[in-house]
Amino acid sequence: MAQFINTREDLVTEAIDGLLAVSGGALVRLDGYPHIRVVLRGDWDKSQVALVSGGGSGHEPAHAGFVGKGMLTAAVCGDVFASPSVDAVLAGILAVTGPAGCVLIVKNYTGDRLNFGLAAERARAFGLNVNMVIIGDDVALPDLPQARGVAGTLFVHKIAGALAQGGADLETVTAAARRVISGAKSIGMSLDTCTVPGSPKEDRIPVGMAELGLGIHGEAGVEQIAFTGAKTAMQAVVDKLAAAIDERPHVALINNLGGTSALEMSVLTHELIGSSIGSRISHVVGPAPMMTSLDMQGFSISLYPADDADIQALSAPVSMAAWPGLSAVKPIRIDVLPDGLTPITPQPSNHQETRDFLVDCCKVLISAEEDLNALDAKSGDGDTGSTLAGAARALINAIDRLPLSDHTQLYRAIGQELSQTMGGSSGVLLAIFFAAAGDAASSGLPMADSLKAGLARMQEIGGADLGDRTMVDALSPALDALETGIKPAAAAARTGANRTAGMLKAKAGRAAYINAKQLEGHIDPGAEAVARLFEHLAR
Amino acid sequence: MAQFINTREDLVTEAIDGLLAVSGGALVRLDGYPHIRVVLRGDWDKSQVALVSGGGSGHEPAHAGFVGKGMLTAAVCGDVFASPSVDAVLAGILAVTGPAGCVLIVKNYTGDRLNFGLAAERARAFGLNVNMVIIGDDVALPDLPQARGVAGTLFVHKIAGALAQGGADLETVTAAARRVISGAKSIGMSLDTCTVPGSPKEDRIPVGMAELGLGIHGEAGVEQIAFTGAKTAMQAVVDKLAAAIDERPHVALINNLGGTSALEMSVLTHELIGSSIGSRISHVVGPAPMMTSLDMQGFSISLYPADDADIQALSAPVSMAAWPGLSAVKPIRIDVLPDGLTPITPQPSNHQETRDFLVDCCKVLISAEEDLNALDAKSGDGDTGSTLAGAARALINAIDRLPLSDHTQLYRAIGQELSQTMGGSSGVLLAIFFAAAGDAASSGLPMADSLKAGLARMQEIGGADLGDRTMVDALSPALDALETGIKPAAAAARTGANRTAGMLKAKAGRAAYINAKQLEGHIDPGAEAVARLFEHLAR
Repeated sequence: MAQFINTREDLVTEAIDGLLAVSGGALVRLDGYPHIRVVLRGDWDKSQVALVSGGGSGHEPAHAGFVGKGMLTAAVCGDVFASPSVDAVLAGILAVTGPAGCVLIVKNYTGDRLNFGLAAERARAFGLNVNMVIIGDDVALPDLPQARGVAGTLFVHKIAGALAQGGADLETVTAAARRVISGAKSIGMSLDTCTVPGSPKEDRIPVGMAELGLGIHGEAGVEQIAFTGAKTAMQAVVDKLAAAIDERPHVALINNLGGTSALEMSVLTHELIGSSIGSRISHVVGPAPMMTSLDMQGFSISLYPADDADIQALSAPVSMAAWPGLSAVKPIRIDVLPDGLTPITPQPSNHQETRDFLVDCCKVLISAEEDLNALDAKSGDGDTGSTLAGAARALINAIDRLPLSDHTQLYRAIGQELSQTMGGSSGVLLAIFFAAAGDAASSGLPMADSLKAGLARMQEIGGADLGDRTMVDALSPALDALETGIKPAAAAARTGANRTAGMLKAKAGRAAYINAKQLEGHIDPGAEAVARLFEHLAR
Repeated sequence: MAQFINTREDLVTEAIDGLLAVSGGALVRLDGYPHIRVVLRGDWDKSQVALVSGGGSGHEPAHAGFVGKGMLTAAVCGDVFASPSVDAVLAGILAVTGPAGCVLIVKNYTGDRLNFGLAAERARAFGLNVNMVIIGDDVALPDLPQARGVAGTLFVHKIAGALAQGGADLETVTAAARRVISGAKSIGMSLDTCTVPGSPKEDRIPVGMAELGLGIHGEAGVEQIAFTGAKTAMQAVVDKLAAAIDERPHVALINNLGGTSALEMSVLTHELIGSSIGSRISHVVGPAPMMTSLDMQGFSISLYPADDADIQALSAPVSMAAWPGLSAVKPIRIDVLPDGLTPITPQPSNHQETRDFLVDCCKVLISAEEDLNALDAKSGDGDTGSTLAGAARALINAIDRLPLSDHTQLYRAIGQELSQTMGGSSGVLLAIFFAAAGDAASSGLPMADSLKAGLARMQEIGGADLGDRTMVDALSPALDALETGIKPAAAAARTGANRTAGMLKAKAGRAAYINAKQLEGHIDPGAEAVARLFEHLAR
């Protein structure tokens, strides 16, 4: 078994119970499991025309997912891909039909026609007014006088449902359903077959091929065509539909057959709107799974030339999550990029003392390159020294562009330089450190506090705490000690750095993925770099 | 390629354009394709706190599908499973952030933390008020201090979104987001890996196994467990969650990871509600695909102990089709079966002439058994004769139960008998014929007209027209001629039946699937039966 079910026998009743349990009382069912599987509106009072649909299961959310105010009154659920019994359909009709009558909305399959048809006769014997409409929207087999009923069914559910909800009488609702049926055209395409519970998966569609005009019960497509991408696939679908529709504006129902990813469905939507019939599509329903074929990786497009009243009916809000609503197709609006993406270039300025200080720091890092690489080789890929030395060399090269006399701007400028030259996580984290420190400095904090603010932000973003074997283990105690002078800061940095050699469970950074044994006795290279910097400055 | 995409490079921009084209103008995007992929609310005026989320693509509808009034203000989309650039995030922040400020909602992945974090710093340099919250709801790896962010993110989007929409200030929205984050717990399970566009599918999960605690980027699960069905699978998920939650009532977000069928999701919902923590689940969101992993056949459950204000925020209506809404969990209501499923048993009565007539007709069919079987062997499975003869014998046995003196009731009773004894399509169709004829007779039509009404209904349900090589080809002309007498009717039936031997393209019934050559020269067995019946009666 490769599906989230228990047994094939209990699949449909358990799925219905799952649906009902989370319907908030909007849906109820008739007694009579397992043979009678009828889902009804919980608030139904028989005051309006009832709409009853159903058929085999495996097409969810159709049909039970569309039961509710403004769409279906009841859904009669058969086994997977098998028509419900006459008794089940009759139970559904009898449960919901009042003086206003009932319309049975039936997809054109022999079993459904017969079972719904006989149930209708038996209901009529009780004096109930029952009409039946048969949907055949599939254009895959144009020579067949009896086209299959597929996802175009949803147009009928929604338009007839809105009319019935609005109080239209039986003949009006029936006539509307028949009008929608005569206008709805659908076709499907798939890259894979569906997995029927309890049966081995049919391996019918070769890699590189797509099936066009397939049914919703795993019926093979009318043809297999080479699959070269979403654009040509949609064009093949559109070609079939174009032959069946006229020039009026149409609503397109974009249906996921079950296993197609949302990303693919959006690409297909893009291709449909850009296709040769795109200009005739005024509105869409979806993309969404509406009439599925279990987990089939495919889609179908249904078109219907809706008039203004139809648009109103399709737009009427309903509370069923399965109905994705109607949207107008409009040209895409593209807003201009906001100003500010190019970083503010600071005004260069000189300040000899700051310049000397910075260059001095850079040289410490450059001279430590090989030692830090060697340390990093114990816990990473051995390039921490080179990364820091490279950034230090770049900063020396950039020194004339920096706002050396404006310390607040200088923090941000250093951060900007590091983010551009260092790359990787450490470059971003140091950029965040200096940017946040600059923010703090600009609000008037003294240097030690500004640096602490930078550290706090870097820790927030990077996620490293004290004890996680990162540069934080040296930098944090150093900044805490900095108020009392650079020498205590340097001592604190060294103590902190040395302590990392005993931290065997790294929780952040790359060392988190390294075996503890390999870390033992080796100082973290980032912490070592911080310690060396402070020790040099303390001399 | 086995996906409905064009190229891997254009996938995300085409998908976004598909989403936008059918948003009815609700969504717009920033200029700057392909590097800047930012989807925004089309109606945004910066008067409220902006919510910006995003990350790698492949999780649709997250995040662009949740942009709109009451949820996100903007979504920044990276490549599939790759963080968006700092510039893209910054563009999103700058485009939507006004004086009320902005909250960045970031899932806990290093790339997202760093890129959103640095973008936040750069935005702050422009004087914008930007807060950032980091979601780590995944309980799969309890020892990691930095849990991954998965579908619990949706709780944050919705609750913070409702507050922001209601005019709450930046600190209130941020605090609420952090509160939700601290309470949200999630875990996922899958039966298959996802298909990353452009990469071969990883074949990691053996048949019969499920992965528990997997990531949303194809990261392997914490463990593989034997998969024995939906119930035990859900129990394994529930066991992990139970260890992470307290006794308060929780909202459960039931997330489809992309490729799980709706039927399976409903079964899983049933199992969750019936599980050991079911009594602690007061509400659910879904089941629906919300935070997917492309086409992964899996699901995740997220729990959050919502208070009354949270429930209100989660219930607030939004127009995005991707948000399935919040539903209360309630006991399933089961309505009693309606009366009328047991067919009305007619009061038996005798009428010798009718009795003799019926038995006579039955004997005709019994005597034709072998001839009709032989004819059927040419176009079907050779059992039409036996089917009709069996029904005739059953009707003779039932003759004392029939309301022979009430002709209106008799039609219906015969239909009922046939539907129970004949089985198959023909039994149902004859039952419909007699039931509809009975209806017509009860409204006072003469016999020939009643039978014609029955025929019309049978044709409507069965779909057979004249010329389709069925019993209709004999019965229809016979009933037309019946007004002028039984002899013309018999002649018409014979002519019609003989004509079927030349009908080479059957359009209804089983013969529709037979090669024309095989049909040539053979009368349809149903039409032959009708002709023999009328011929016998005419003698």
